[in-house]
Amino acid sequence: MRTLRLLVEYDGTNYVGWQRQREGASIQGALEDALRAMLGLPATHPLSVRGAGRTDAGVHAEGQVAAVDLDDAITVPALGFQRGLNAHLPPDIAVLSVQDAAPGFNPRRAARGKLYRYRIWNHDTRSPLHGRYTWHVRGFLDMERMREGAALLQGEHDFRGFRAADCERRTTRRLLRRVDARRQGALITVDVEGTAFLKHMVRILTGTLVQLAQGRLTLDEVRAVLEHGDRTRAGVTAPAQGLTLVRVDL
Amino acid sequence: MRTLRLLVEYDGTNYVGWQRQREGASIQGALEDALRAMLGLPATHPLSVRGAGRTDAGVHAEGQVAAVDLDDAITVPALGFQRGLNAHLPPDIAVLSVQDAAPGFNPRRAARGKLYRYRIWNHDTRSPLHGRYTWHVRGFLDMERMREGAALLQGEHDFRGFRAADCERRTTRRLLRRVDARRQGALITVDVEGTAFLKHMVRILTGTLVQLAQGRLTLDEVRAVLEHGDRTRAGVTAPAQGLTLVRVDL
Repeated sequence: MRTLRLLVEYDGTNYVGWQRQREGASIQGALEDALRAMLGLPATHPLSVRGAGRTDAGVHAEGQVAAVDLDDAITVPALGFQRGLNAHLPPDIAVLSVQDAAPGFNPRRAARGKLYRYRIWNHDTRSPLHGRYTWHVRGFLDMERMREGAALLQGEHDFRGFRAADCERRTTRRLLRRVDARRQGALITVDVEGTAFLKHMVRILTGTLVQLAQGRLTLDEVRAVLEHGDRTRAGVTAPAQGLTLVRVDL
Repeated sequence: MRTLRLLVEYDGTNYVGWQRQREGASIQGALEDALRAMLGLPATHPLSVRGAGRTDAGVHAEGQVAAVDLDDAITVPALGFQRGLNAHLPPDIAVLSVQDAAPGFNPRRAARGKLYRYRIWNHDTRSPLHGRYTWHVRGFLDMERMREGAALLQGEHDFRGFRAADCERRTTRRLLRRVDARRQGALITVDVEGTAFLKHMVRILTGTLVQLAQGRLTLDEVRAVLEHGDRTRAGVTAPAQGLTLVRVDL
């Protein structure tokens, strides 16, 4: 068995997310199709590309890490895979690098950490040039309060109050190594770095920080959600298009 | 007569350019349609939105300035126009502000200067997240040579060698107050600031700087184009999607 490791960038706008679904185009499916096309394999040939993070529908990636197992008989060099895949992928997905990895390499298990970045466009008017990659939030946002909220969420906590209702993880304690928010003009960037994440966790954390900055939630209320895990009292789920998986640390 | 001045942002990807054409959607046409829709005027009602710069098909704007003359009887306040227009415009066009202006205000004539920004993605692999707003150029680009070329083009010159074949302007001397190129990672930004421009001028200047940086043109060759005006010896026309009209100075 030969295992390849891929670094992948994508614009998630037109996809149902990383994971193959019964309906709609997925990033995983597009990579598998491109692999089959470049290797001249039939559409029925089983292939499974594994990703380090299962990004939701509409979420983007600057540096998703993926792996795939191939037959040893395939001797195409890694660089040939990069060119071949890019020639068969649609313009909104690109493979930035390909390397040979230890057989069976699993990026999800190998990941020591991930950096997600959430972008907010804080302006009275929506931005045609930033709308594809930001959440448009009108009105005043108090950055000082947002930073206080970020400092509160950073660290090891039980995040069961900050996950989607259908999240099936048993353990909900997670370590967030870094949560910070900064502003540059109308653009607010929230970085969340951690080892593992629950479903919609970064989007709910961001929604919570925005509601804090709007004065619609207090720090005490957020502290209570961390303590008692009541999802209904945390913030809204920020929309998918503002989120990007920036980096996977291996 | 009442004249409004509009500040407009747009993603030009899906448009034939600023100017109304017989076929295809234009930014000017979309603004006129939105005005008629918000004012409840019939589609046949004549309206003419004037722009400070006629951006080409696929070119974007962060700060295009436009004006339109309306009947005095229309007393909607300026802020009402902003909201009303944005409610009727497609997501890839937004009006950032509306002000009352001197009757007959002409942004093209009033403009004292414009800043155009050209973005290049200099990386082996195309970028799905930057592709919409950059020109993808592979291989080494010598920034030192690009900066020398920018310094050469800055100032007042006869730019007849740097315009589209069908450009009809009689006078071709133009003053470029600032031409500079800088790199941040894979992103190279070329800023061109001047009073007036010839057709495709910024795109041809950028194409010339890229060919200089690739070693495919020399500084002496560029100097010769400035002196003799031979378009066939200047660089290629850089593609439209990398170009943005950033600002119009009034």
